[in-house]
Amino acid sequence: MKVGVFDSGIGGLTVVKSLLEHQLFEEIIYFGDTARVPYGVKDKNTIVRYSLEALEFFKNFEIDLLITACNTVSAYALEEMRAQAPFDVIGVVEPGIIATKNALTNSDANVLVLGTQATIASKAYETLLAAKGFNNTTAKATGLFVPIIEEGLFTGEILESTMEHYFKDLDHPDGIILGCTHFPLIADAIVDYFNNNVILIHSGEAIVEYLETHYEFTQKHHEPKIKFFASENPEALRKVAHNWLDLPDEK
Amino acid sequence: MKVGVFDSGIGGLTVVKSLLEHQLFEEIIYFGDTARVPYGVKDKNTIVRYSLEALEFFKNFEIDLLITACNTVSAYALEEMRAQAPFDVIGVVEPGIIATKNALTNSDANVLVLGTQATIASKAYETLLAAKGFNNTTAKATGLFVPIIEEGLFTGEILESTMEHYFKDLDHPDGIILGCTHFPLIADAIVDYFNNNVILIHSGEAIVEYLETHYEFTQKHHEPKIKFFASENPEALRKVAHNWLDLPDEK
Repeated sequence: MKVGVFDSGIGGLTVVKSLLEHQLFEEIIYFGDTARVPYGVKDKNTIVRYSLEALEFFKNFEIDLLITACNTVSAYALEEMRAQAPFDVIGVVEPGIIATKNALTNSDANVLVLGTQATIASKAYETLLAAKGFNNTTAKATGLFVPIIEEGLFTGEILESTMEHYFKDLDHPDGIILGCTHFPLIADAIVDYFNNNVILIHSGEAIVEYLETHYEFTQKHHEPKIKFFASENPEALRKVAHNWLDLPDEK
Repeated sequence: MKVGVFDSGIGGLTVVKSLLEHQLFEEIIYFGDTARVPYGVKDKNTIVRYSLEALEFFKNFEIDLLITACNTVSAYALEEMRAQAPFDVIGVVEPGIIATKNALTNSDANVLVLGTQATIASKAYETLLAAKGFNNTTAKATGLFVPIIEEGLFTGEILESTMEHYFKDLDHPDGIILGCTHFPLIADAIVDYFNNNVILIHSGEAIVEYLETHYEFTQKHHEPKIKFFASENPEALRKVAHNWLDLPDEK
């Protein structure tokens, strides 16, 4: 199977990492809209418009499936994309909810959803969590984590004071949904902040779990073809991807 | 005179504030490219392309002069915009340099330039400072200030630890060029960090100084017409502008 992965920027590489670890696909086409990143501070009309433009790009490839790695796109534009796509389109919100349900069997569990301003404003996670019977959910826009992570500050004073700013008035959560592709990069710091006593839900892992349930994968692909595209500076994205995903040269 | 003010987002309102205080213009047209903000993390080709699109927008109005309030646009796209504009186009870099020269008469003065990643990478300020004889310049990309300011955190732990991160290894500067329209909002915190012993150069004030030198203003305009446009959610920008600039209803 050939899969497309769409993200507003480089964050979706956390999802690609999970796809590669599980060797699910024969070919992966990645597109990051780096010229217009970030989406998480923009409004619904803009997010839908940009997502449909990305969809047109993916129509140039014969993919079987498109994953929107970006939580903000998944929260706002999935329906519109599905209406115009000749292939399946899967977001990260629904898989995240299923993974949460599997990880936290008690529906009284205290669930904390972290995301960008737009993702949290959509209430996409809260609505689906409520539908699954979770009645103790807190959603918190923690957008400042994105530029801090992009600055490479995965530890240290700035991250610590930002976590304190966002988390200090919250009850201790049982589970945290990392509702932005960037957040897995500070997973260790977040777990540490909550005294190593919290379960994290990661979009990449959730997507793999979802795919393995809903699609049939007949063989493992040890050396998938993978191509990276970006709306600006694709070389920079390729460089990050190759270093970070430990890939051989592009094929 | 009728002026256009172009910025990547809402930051250029710091420049509008200075224009209004000095009552220079009869009419002000503001455009913020909020659908594609921020520019400061993008590359030259993208910045030039977006700036030329904004220029087309301003051609719909009979303006006498266009001010690019955004330092990143001023550093990268001024020449290209001037080549296609039927009116004068003024950036904030050159006025900032002149204001620095006026404020710091000693060319041995230690000058610190703060800006986004793109502005600092352009070396626009350093090059012009060197041409004016300043030989003791440090330029520092402090892009994380932008989202912190947009989060409204003008004081507190996050800002303090971010200033410490960026400033701790620097010599004490005599003057600081605030090379991003957002930075005047944390001017007090920056001055305080440097023990109230530093001169700040602010783009809005520098532009006014420059305009008064290069153009003839025959009368003051107490109640200029002012119109705000944005590439997404113009209502949000208008609301910020009206609150912040203390304006009456739009005319």
